Amino acid sequence: MVEFFSKVAVEAKASDVRELLKLTKIPGMISFAGGLPSPDAFPVEEMKGVAVDVIDKHGYKAMQYGTTEGLAELRTLIKDIMAKRHVNTDISNILITTGSQQGLDLCGKVFINKGDKIACESPTYLAAISALKPYQPQFVEIDMDEEGMRLDHLEKQLQSEKIKFIYTIPDFQNPSGRSMTIERRRAMVDLANKYDVLIVEDSPYSELAYDQEAYAPIKSFDTEGRVIYLSTFSKIVCPGFRVGWICADEKYLSKYIILKQGLDLHTNQFSQYMIENYYSKYNMDQQIDQIKSLYRTKRDAMIEAIELHFPKSVKTSKPAGGMFLWVELPEGIDSKALLPKALEQKVAYVSGEAFYPNIPKKNTMRLNFSNSTVSEIHKGIKILGEILSEALL
Amino acid sequence: MVEFFSKVAVEAKASDVRELLKLTKIPGMISFAGGLPSPDAFPVEEMKGVAVDVIDKHGYKAMQYGTTEGLAELRTLIKDIMAKRHVNTDISNILITTGSQQGLDLCGKVFINKGDKIACESPTYLAAISALKPYQPQFVEIDMDEEGMRLDHLEKQLQSEKIKFIYTIPDFQNPSGRSMTIERRRAMVDLANKYDVLIVEDSPYSELAYDQEAYAPIKSFDTEGRVIYLSTFSKIVCPGFRVGWICADEKYLSKYIILKQGLDLHTNQFSQYMIENYYSKYNMDQQIDQIKSLYRTKRDAMIEAIELHFPKSVKTSKPAGGMFLWVELPEGIDSKALLPKALEQKVAYVSGEAFYPNIPKKNTMRLNFSNSTVSEIHKGIKILGEILSEALL
Repeated sequence: MVEFFSKVAVEAKASDVRELLKLTKIPGMISFAGGLPSPDAFPVEEMKGVAVDVIDKHGYKAMQYGTTEGLAELRTLIKDIMAKRHVNTDISNILITTGSQQGLDLCGKVFINKGDKIACESPTYLAAISALKPYQPQFVEIDMDEEGMRLDHLEKQLQSEKIKFIYTIPDFQNPSGRSMTIERRRAMVDLANKYDVLIVEDSPYSELAYDQEAYAPIKSFDTEGRVIYLSTFSKIVCPGFRVGWICADEKYLSKYIILKQGLDLHTNQFSQYMIENYYSKYNMDQQIDQIKSLYRTKRDAMIEAIELHFPKSVKTSKPAGGMFLWVELPEGIDSKALLPKALEQKVAYVSGEAFYPNIPKKNTMRLNFSNSTVSEIHKGIKILGEILSEALL
Repeated sequence: MVEFFSKVAVEAKASDVRELLKLTKIPGMISFAGGLPSPDAFPVEEMKGVAVDVIDKHGYKAMQYGTTEGLAELRTLIKDIMAKRHVNTDISNILITTGSQQGLDLCGKVFINKGDKIACESPTYLAAISALKPYQPQFVEIDMDEEGMRLDHLEKQLQSEKIKFIYTIPDFQNPSGRSMTIERRRAMVDLANKYDVLIVEDSPYSELAYDQEAYAPIKSFDTEGRVIYLSTFSKIVCPGFRVGWICADEKYLSKYIILKQGLDLHTNQFSQYMIENYYSKYNMDQQIDQIKSLYRTKRDAMIEAIELHFPKSVKTSKPAGGMFLWVELPEGIDSKALLPKALEQKVAYVSGEAFYPNIPKKNTMRLNFSNSTVSEIHKGIKILGEILSEALL
């Protein structure tokens, strides 16, 4: 009965990563595979009082249909968050989305015609690829170095072909852990202006900066309203509520709003109220400091364990924030081929190839450090180190 | 900067209805325009205990990322709900969606290539049109009578052209209030089998049956796994949680699951747990009986007021359930042209033309009775009756 499916559905395949994540639920498995925040970072007990408060204060409104734009109170709060992130904006520039993921899907819907070209970092975020792919763009992969996307490579592409938008995760990128320097952020806006192209700035991790404050977002340098900024409460409150946002110029945001209606009418009303109430009751700076301190320890533990156990020919990123380390094995080593051995010893990771929309680099892997304990990190990295050492013999 | 937009975005326009709904927030406005459940139908106080219970029982799991398929516990509950609705199914056939609206969007994504033909009732649900339109189908409108979609007309279309799926709201249809008879439900499945076509059965209102039990769903007669069944907790618990579901054969559902990942990864975890907990603590039959009794009174009040105040040449449906009445004015009367007069006297309704994907019948209007009080219904219908009488002079 395959003939019923759309072309998009025919091409949509269950990802290996998804299948892998099921395996990570096996008891005793040490998983560096997922991208889960630590449950220790969630304000679980606090949310009891928050939920009761929301019902006391807002009653049926927290349960009724809401506007597509989202709760005015929450958008006001986001306006303040954006100001702290050096972006002065207005609530008319803010749309609440059902997680950042919906923001990505909407970027596809609003901008991509079949065959349009999208520039992105190589590697890039797996779920951005799966969000945008149904709109049938061509991904143009731009190399990265330790300072983020290489703008000389980007400019060459901009010179030679029309790009619809540049998709970038400038802060502690998923999967590479790398951050774009402040100079490049400024320069990327200049390029966007010069070549008349948009920038989709995906920023879920900017608050998770462990060594120094995160750089100002690309959006803060936006002079012509070309930057569509996506963010989320998933990493600073919790992901289960599925509440994110888009901050963009109204001329673009108006289309996002109309097209979001067809997707889910509006984002969960109760969770919007809960986040707003939680921010009003608690000191968020303190809460974020706690998350940072928790994750900093885990990151340091993973780097330390890697230095101790990984062969010296293996290159690992040392991210200043976020949730991921990126590992490059010597050329010719396929990280996916090593995965069954790791799973057998109850350690999981994601092979890097899923993060390349076109030509995968098979000698890469992504390690998540936020969701394991320090002792799991030591144990798991030791096992991985042994597997890698054996493979490199 | 219009050149950045996709064709889909260029064609997406803010609907009149949406603009109208903003006006209905003016104090004193009696609104028959929206499709909101009555806040009196929401278990507001109960949800305090439910929220605390969910956190006590499930802790951080209610706040963490979840699986795309949805919570197993909630899918088990839905399996039981489906059994009560005469559909024996398994949780592997159930996917939790972010409202039924997301189910509609996914139907487009999974099945529609540009130009594919979709048969639907004429008129049909406004937000189904806006969900499916971005996939660029051709809508084939099929006439209705008091027994639902006319199957003789449908069969003529099936004979002459390839239809991808039949979209139908068989129970207390939005906007017409009409229900498809049990004979037609059976016969529609026979037609689908004969002409090798799918059926998307959209059933948000089936529990809201005021005069007798709702008919068994089309899905219950499905012999070849051709019926994709959509439903929601929006009308029986509350819409603000945005939790709905799809029940379908696994060969189709597997594609829905993959493509939902790109949309929002998964549906709000906390709200899924809340609904599951709410059902486990409370007698839902009793709760639904209360909603039915509340809405039955409002429906009866609206029908009574219409008999008293509307000119006799105006035809009105007498729905056996749901939330809407459908009004047909004499030919040549444009209901939209009368709307400013009504708004001036603080009564709102939706002109029927928005419910036709191709050629609008301008002499129609939809009246919602669930969201107004009985005294508002009497007052508002009297005013509308005066406006109609004047227009028909």
